[in-house]
Amino acid sequence: MIRFPKIPEMRKIDVCPTPELLHLYNLENKIAVIVDVFRATSCITTAFAHGVAKIIPVAQLDECRALQQQGYLAAAERNTLKADGFDLDNSPFSYMDPVLKGQTLAMTTTNGTLAITKSRAAARVVIGSFLNRRAVTDYLLGQPHDVLVVCAGWKGKYNLEDTLFAGAVVCTLKNEFVIEDDAALAAQMIYDAAKYNMIKFIANSSHVRRLAGLHLTRDIEFCLRENLYNVVPVLENGALVV
Amino acid sequence: MIRFPKIPEMRKIDVCPTPELLHLYNLENKIAVIVDVFRATSCITTAFAHGVAKIIPVAQLDECRALQQQGYLAAAERNTLKADGFDLDNSPFSYMDPVLKGQTLAMTTTNGTLAITKSRAAARVVIGSFLNRRAVTDYLLGQPHDVLVVCAGWKGKYNLEDTLFAGAVVCTLKNEFVIEDDAALAAQMIYDAAKYNMIKFIANSSHVRRLAGLHLTRDIEFCLRENLYNVVPVLENGALVV
Repeated sequence: MIRFPKIPEMRKIDVCPTPELLHLYNLENKIAVIVDVFRATSCITTAFAHGVAKIIPVAQLDECRALQQQGYLAAAERNTLKADGFDLDNSPFSYMDPVLKGQTLAMTTTNGTLAITKSRAAARVVIGSFLNRRAVTDYLLGQPHDVLVVCAGWKGKYNLEDTLFAGAVVCTLKNEFVIEDDAALAAQMIYDAAKYNMIKFIANSSHVRRLAGLHLTRDIEFCLRENLYNVVPVLENGALVV
Repeated sequence: MIRFPKIPEMRKIDVCPTPELLHLYNLENKIAVIVDVFRATSCITTAFAHGVAKIIPVAQLDECRALQQQGYLAAAERNTLKADGFDLDNSPFSYMDPVLKGQTLAMTTTNGTLAITKSRAAARVVIGSFLNRRAVTDYLLGQPHDVLVVCAGWKGKYNLEDTLFAGAVVCTLKNEFVIEDDAALAAQMIYDAAKYNMIKFIANSSHVRRLAGLHLTRDIEFCLRENLYNVVPVLENGALVV
């Protein structure tokens, strides 16, 4: 009698539209891909691509200040602006500075770092953005785990740019993974409608209006560039590394 | 000098993707449109179109049982099935029965009645479904209030069919209302992609799979029919009336 090897069950992919809904998801044995396109995870990706050694993400300004006082360079953003007294803002261009090479940074942002710290129960936490999209999906394809894309949103609410990225990940993985629920289906549909002109597509989104008002269109365009960097930041012992 | 009348500010429309996010929205002075396409708000619409006088929505089974003991006919659904000991299930066809004419019903469902009771802070709460879509949008156009479409979702999670309805409302109102946030923009995009074949579009959605497994495809098709009924159920003193 021929014995066929047991065919492994297909892995699953799902999307959590905002960290405010994370308590409804089981993170156990999953890889959580955190995305905050405008701009935290785009900054983190850019930082590692330019040689930063480690980033300690924290949810609160106080924690970030305490780390700054211990000697770390500290990045802090609230409501799209740099918080008073910190070293770095939340623009990806600020993370290309050669002086950051080899450094450890502390970082807190309105949405992105909160999404990271809330996802710590996952088997692994990785950082996704359009800038490292292919690197992230290649990484996910090579792992045995189910995937949950966690959209950082805006103060708990749904947003379009993180959903777009989630949809891009679903599109890339859908032949190898089963789509688990409607949020992932919807993200995929939105990405399919938008993929040929993302900038035009999200021109009316709330965050683009918020950033454009601060003359940050250069940041918007940069954060929507795809596959510029081949890094996959991963959370290890509370700090992001590559 | 000619004095022009002051042009009123445009009303706003937004979408709350699940009741689990309602605490992030300000309901004051807004009309909340509650939608649970599969199947609570489709049942409620059908019931009023067939002469039911009043429906008391309650969140908990216990409350529903207490009203049943006071002599009301009681409808109770949990996990798509009729709860033990109640009079009516959650199929719109059950609400076409002539014996219900003039009656007051008590009703509790997994998602829909919870969304209603959680939205009570709104200036007005109305019931929307594809079955009464035009009646609802005509009603909203005639009111001075901003609008929040509250999707009932599935146990706190995002779902596709309620988002589709929300998108249909946004599409109809977008010339008279300002779209407030990304959830409304995304709902509109999804409706635009789906509107010519909604049944095919949501064939893979989680709830359709759930209901189809129970051989309820007749319910699915019925709940996606548009503008069958010209009723707008409104919450008054804790009970729905037309």
